[in-house]
This record gives sequence, structure tokens and C-alpha cells, in this order.
Amino acid sequence: MAGTFRIGLLGHGTVGAAFAQLLAERADHVARVTGTRPEITGVLTRSRGDFAEILAASDLVVELMGGLDPAREHVLAALRAGRHVVTANKLLLAEHGDELWAAASENDVQLRFEAAVGGVVPVIRVLQESLAAARVERLHGIVNGTTNFILSRMADTGAGYEDALAEAQRLGYAEADPTDDVTGRDAAAKMTILARLAFDTPVAFADVRYEGITELTADDMAYARELGLGLKLVGTAERVNGGISVRVHPVFLGAGHPLASVNGPFNAVTIESEAITEITLSGPGAGGPQTASAVLGDVVSAMIPPASVGRWAPDQAALPMVEDVTSAFYLHLEVADHPGVLAQIAQVLGLQGISVKSVVQRGMGEGARLVMVLHPVRESAMTAAVELIGGLDFMRARPRTIRVIDEEFV
Amino acid sequence: MAGTFRIGLLGHGTVGAAFAQLLAERADHVARVTGTRPEITGVLTRSRGDFAEILAASDLVVELMGGLDPAREHVLAALRAGRHVVTANKLLLAEHGDELWAAASENDVQLRFEAAVGGVVPVIRVLQESLAAARVERLHGIVNGTTNFILSRMADTGAGYEDALAEAQRLGYAEADPTDDVTGRDAAAKMTILARLAFDTPVAFADVRYEGITELTADDMAYARELGLGLKLVGTAERVNGGISVRVHPVFLGAGHPLASVNGPFNAVTIESEAITEITLSGPGAGGPQTASAVLGDVVSAMIPPASVGRWAPDQAALPMVEDVTSAFYLHLEVADHPGVLAQIAQVLGLQGISVKSVVQRGMGEGARLVMVLHPVRESAMTAAVELIGGLDFMRARPRTIRVIDEEFV
Repeated sequence: MAGTFRIGLLGHGTVGAAFAQLLAERADHVARVTGTRPEITGVLTRSRGDFAEILAASDLVVELMGGLDPAREHVLAALRAGRHVVTANKLLLAEHGDELWAAASENDVQLRFEAAVGGVVPVIRVLQESLAAARVERLHGIVNGTTNFILSRMADTGAGYEDALAEAQRLGYAEADPTDDVTGRDAAAKMTILARLAFDTPVAFADVRYEGITELTADDMAYARELGLGLKLVGTAERVNGGISVRVHPVFLGAGHPLASVNGPFNAVTIESEAITEITLSGPGAGGPQTASAVLGDVVSAMIPPASVGRWAPDQAALPMVEDVTSAFYLHLEVADHPGVLAQIAQVLGLQGISVKSVVQRGMGEGARLVMVLHPVRESAMTAAVELIGGLDFMRARPRTIRVIDEEFV
Repeated sequence: MAGTFRIGLLGHGTVGAAFAQLLAERADHVARVTGTRPEITGVLTRSRGDFAEILAASDLVVELMGGLDPAREHVLAALRAGRHVVTANKLLLAEHGDELWAAASENDVQLRFEAAVGGVVPVIRVLQESLAAARVERLHGIVNGTTNFILSRMADTGAGYEDALAEAQRLGYAEADPTDDVTGRDAAAKMTILARLAFDTPVAFADVRYEGITELTADDMAYARELGLGLKLVGTAERVNGGISVRVHPVFLGAGHPLASVNGPFNAVTIESEAITEITLSGPGAGGPQTASAVLGDVVSAMIPPASVGRWAPDQAALPMVEDVTSAFYLHLEVADHPGVLAQIAQVLGLQGISVKSVVQRGMGEGARLVMVLHPVRESAMTAAVELIGGLDFMRARPRTIRVIDEEFV
């Protein structure tokens, strides 16, 4: 094992603490992937730590303080001192991205910020790397989990905005002061960053129009349902007549739109380009562990030598292949319509320890069928049961099984 | 502008030709991002080209021949000659991944293969980079577009398997010999690769169980609908009791599962990990242009100096911000219930060139509301219309507008 990769951590709130914990848990794994072991060698909070000392003792700086000041100065100083920087600070990037990126380029270091947009959804990496060669035409995003949670509650329960907001606050999905989220300002900062990456052009945060969700009513939700549409707070960045438009506002989405089914505190982004048609990325919005995971992904990317990306040869012992896994099943039986058929089948299932969730009998006489949904069971038990059932004299065809993945059935 | 980045292209079928065309279109852009200009300096097909000459004249080899032989020899020779390799060959990786990756590591070159799995869905990059530090627990994938198209047609039209297959063949979504797709073998090869990356352990293609869709019936689809489930061909890779399980089979999915709404020739992958909960990536399955785009993304990644990933500072002129974009609208009006109200509103809309798609009148007297959906219109015209309507004497509240994104309304 080679040396230590030294990380200076600025900020130790929810995300900072989650990052420190995740790093400790995953340090061995990261060492195996990258060849060096990451370690936090200094922490700056409001009450402790000295920035200059932390900087001097680090190879990379993780900025999780939030806000513009002193985050901007610290990040600039780190980049100018030749340190890679990973940040989750969307406001900093939306307001001062140009200056920071120029500093990174001049000093030949990396500035990574996956955690600033989309929670754990890797939209920054996909735009910067997978689509580096594509011409992006349009991007739609649900990039604020708080508002998506509120709108989902309004849609599901018929609650008004104020009640849904109160519930979001109680569950920890909204801050005590939710202004930045519910006015659309947070989403606008994220769209500023995404638009810049998608179109490779400067975008000023001040030029991004935004409207929030505070004026939406239960009535709007009712109409949305009636029209078969979903009501979401959507950020749009698109090419228009040789220019671009970047904006955030509530939108009715058709049921077929990939963003229409994104519910609760989730984020999702749809990227359209002629060559790729359209890809959609979705996942939980920012929470402490999720954001920490995105930050750690960026740290690993900064550590990893490019030729080692995705090392194939594993250093660890091979994991055994488990054959006998557990699944829920649908079981379709064509049976002669005699008395006692269901009892015999139920007995076979019971002997294999298989419990029945639901059963439907269809048809009569020659066309009779039994369709059952079974609770999760070892596949070996299911195979044995199917073989036994197949041998019963009233069966008119081979039993058919299809696995089921559904939380309601588990 | 610095020099040329020389690409040797092996194979010039559908994907090879699409890649050559896309590269020509995007070469200027890539040169701007990476600092060197990519150029195809040699092409090997069955009838022309000499592999040794092409190799000698290349910095990177793109393998799009398919099949194991001679693809395996050529890729190995290229890696051993110190060339980066980008390939879309899932079978080659599923069967000989160990050998190829060892050769890449020994020679300190990159082996990239985003296009081998998931079409344009960047699942390889997300597993290798974004989630390099995460412990993946489970991965579900719809990784074969042909079978997903067939199942979607069966679900939508009530057609049987044979009819849906014939339609897929007519539309170019299935090969004349669809065996590899419909038996689940193609999906199993892709799951072999994904499982290996997700769990960082060797996985033998021969150990991956698979079942196809050839036995599914219209009847199964009818039950799926009745139970509120979607029927898909799903690959699963998961940790089980200290080991792993990798398998492909038809599965009934609950309506809330992120893969349940993936229809037509699309691919999607859901990745579960404690730290991130769950992310989903979806997009079109492999087609010529889509695969070519994934290949080009890998080529750019191999070209790009790591510190320049996602250059922020654009070299091109800033694009203008367009304010007056076009949107479809929902318009909600609280009106006094007088004769002529609708006519006056329609007149105002007509004067602004706004055409009405649908209108609903609700309530009576003091509670009367008009709810309209309007065809796409410039926002400036909409703003003007809303201002005029707001001034009409029968209006009881400010008009409310919400934008609509729905293909049915456009």
C-alpha cells in the first residue's frame, strides 16, 4: 500500500459529518481502487481549525461550508495552492463559477462538484464526460427535492400548499426557512450550472428566471389529475433560435414524460440530444448520506490515475455465486374443474413452506385456470412445488411461473 | 491547435459507419475540449485494411467488429502495443474480460466499453466512477431493447409473442435471427459485465442463469394488467448471504418500480446501495447513432487530460439568453357567470394569435371557473393576453397560468 491521500475538510455540519463517516467506512476500498489511502488531515469549522494549516497539510480540499463567504476565498486559495477541490456548493458555482474554473485551469488542478446538483444523481459527470462529445439540445430537471416532496404530497392527499409544506418541515424535507427552495431560487442556481455545462457557454445566475410553487393550489392539482398530467417544479435549459433559455417554473407534465413519475424527495434530469435521443437520470435528492456519497465519488475521481479507471482485475477473493435465491412468484395453472383441486394445490405449496398471497379462479370445465401470487420463497422450494403440482392428475398443462418484484407482495 | 489523435477503427458495419460520421461532425468540438483533433487514420473490414499497419498508425483502437474472433486477438494486440481500446463488444468482455483488463493494466492503457451495455445509458461510467466508493447491494436492469420492445407491444396491443416479434423485425428492432435477444443470452452477457463492476469480483458468463421471453403469452400480459404489474425481462445482480446472484428472467414489476414504466426499445438500470438508496438511469437501447455516441464519449474520455475534465471556461462566444420562448399553457380563470364571457376571452386570445386546445367550464354564479389548455405560444403573447383578460370586468380573480409539457398538447 502506497502513502496517504490527505483531505482537508471545510465544514462539519450534516453533510460534512456524513462525509467524514463515509470516508472512514470506505477508506480500505478506496485504497484498493486508487492505490492510496484517503484520510482527513484537517477540519475547519466556525469554532476550530486554521485554514492555512489545513491547506498546507492537504492534497485535496473538500468544501462543505455552504454560502459564498468565506467559501469562495478558501476554494480560490486552495486551487491557487495547487490543490484539487471538491465542493457541494451550488450557490458558489452559480455565482462565481467562471472565476473558480479559471483558477483550476491555470493551476492544472481539478474542480469537481457532482454533489452541487441533483443529489446522488450523477448528472454533472454524465454531462462532462459521457456527453462531452454530444451536442445537447435540451435539459429538463426536477432538481429540488423539497418542492418535489411538497407537490407529491399535494397530489397524493389533496392537501394545500401550506399543509404540505408543514409536513415536509416536520419530516425534515424542508428547512425552517424554506424560501430558497419554494421560490425556485435553489433550482435556478442548479440550472445555471447545468446549462453552462450542457451548452458550454457562460450563464449568469441573475439571467435565470424562476417561479416557485407558493401560488399553486389544491385546485390546480385536481385539474392536473383530471387532465392526466403531473404538476412539477421543472427547470428547463434549451437552445432556442441560436441562443439559449434557462428557466424554472411549475409545469404540467404529460403522463408519458420521464419526469412525470418522479415523486417524493427525488431528483431527476432528462437530457436530449440528437445523437442519443434522450436519457434520464433519477435518484434521491440531497440528504446528508447521499450528498456525502456524491462528494466521495468526486474525491475518488480526483485520486484515481486515469489508466486505472474502473480497474477490472479485483484484488479481493472472488465472491461465491449463490444459486438458490428468494423470489415472489406468480403461478399460472390450467386445471380440470374438479372439486378439491385448490385444496390439493394448497397442500403441496404448504408442504414446501410456500404461502399464498392471492388466488383467482377463472373459467370453467376445460378452460379453468388458477392464478396465484405467492409470497417470497426460495427458488428450490418453488421448483420442487412446481414439479409436484405438474404431476397432479387434474393438471391440463405444465404450470407456468413468473417472478414478481413488488413491495406490495413482499 | 495541437496535433492529431489517431484512431484505428476495426469494423465498419452499422455502428462503425455511424461512429465515423459522428466523429467527423464533432471533431472540432472534441478538439476544443481535449486540445487534440481526433481523426480516423485506418479502417479494418473483412475485405480491406491491414491490422498491423492500422495499429502502428493509431493512438487508440475502436473495436466495433463484434464476435470473439478475431476481435479478441486484435484488442489484445492493441493493448499490448500500448494503445487505448474502446469497444462495444459485450460478448468479448463477458467471455474474456479478465484477460483483456489484465493486458490493459500491465500496459498502463485504458480499456473502455460504455457502449457494450445499456445503449446510451452511461451505466458503466456511473459504476466505475460515480460509485467507485459505494458498496452496491443490488442492480436491476432492462438491458435488451429488442425484448423490451416486444413486451411493450404485447402489453399495448394484446398481441401474442410471435406477432410482436414479427413487428419488431419489420421495424428493425429485432434481427432476422433474434435468438440471442429473445432467449435472454444478450442480457446475460451484459449482466455479467455489470455484476463484475458492481461487486468488484470475477463473474463467469457461464454461471449467469437466463430465461427468455419466448414462453410468455398474451394471457400473462392480461394478468399483469389486472394485477397492476408490468411484465419485463429483467437482469438482477445482487449480494446474497455473502455471495452474489446474477440472473435474467421475465419479472412482474410493481407499478411503483422505476423499471415498470420503461417502455419500447429503451434500456434502464436501477442501482441500489445503502449510501445512495437507489438511482435509475434510462435511455434508448443500442441503435447505430446511440452506440456511436457512447463510443465517442469513451474516446473523448481516453483523450482528455484528467485536470481538464469538464473544462468550465468556454472558448466559444457566449450564446445569447433568449427571453421570449414558446410554451403551451393551462389558463385558470375565475369569472362571473354572465353571457358572453367565453366569447370575450376567446376574442382576446385570438387577437394574440393564441389557439385554444380545450376548455372546461365549472361551477355557476360566484363559483364559476373557466379552465383552458392553450396550444404553444410565445410567452410575450401569453403575458399580453393575461394582462388584457385580467382587466375584463367580469374577472373575479387574477388569471392563473401554468406551463404544459405534453406531446399531446403540442
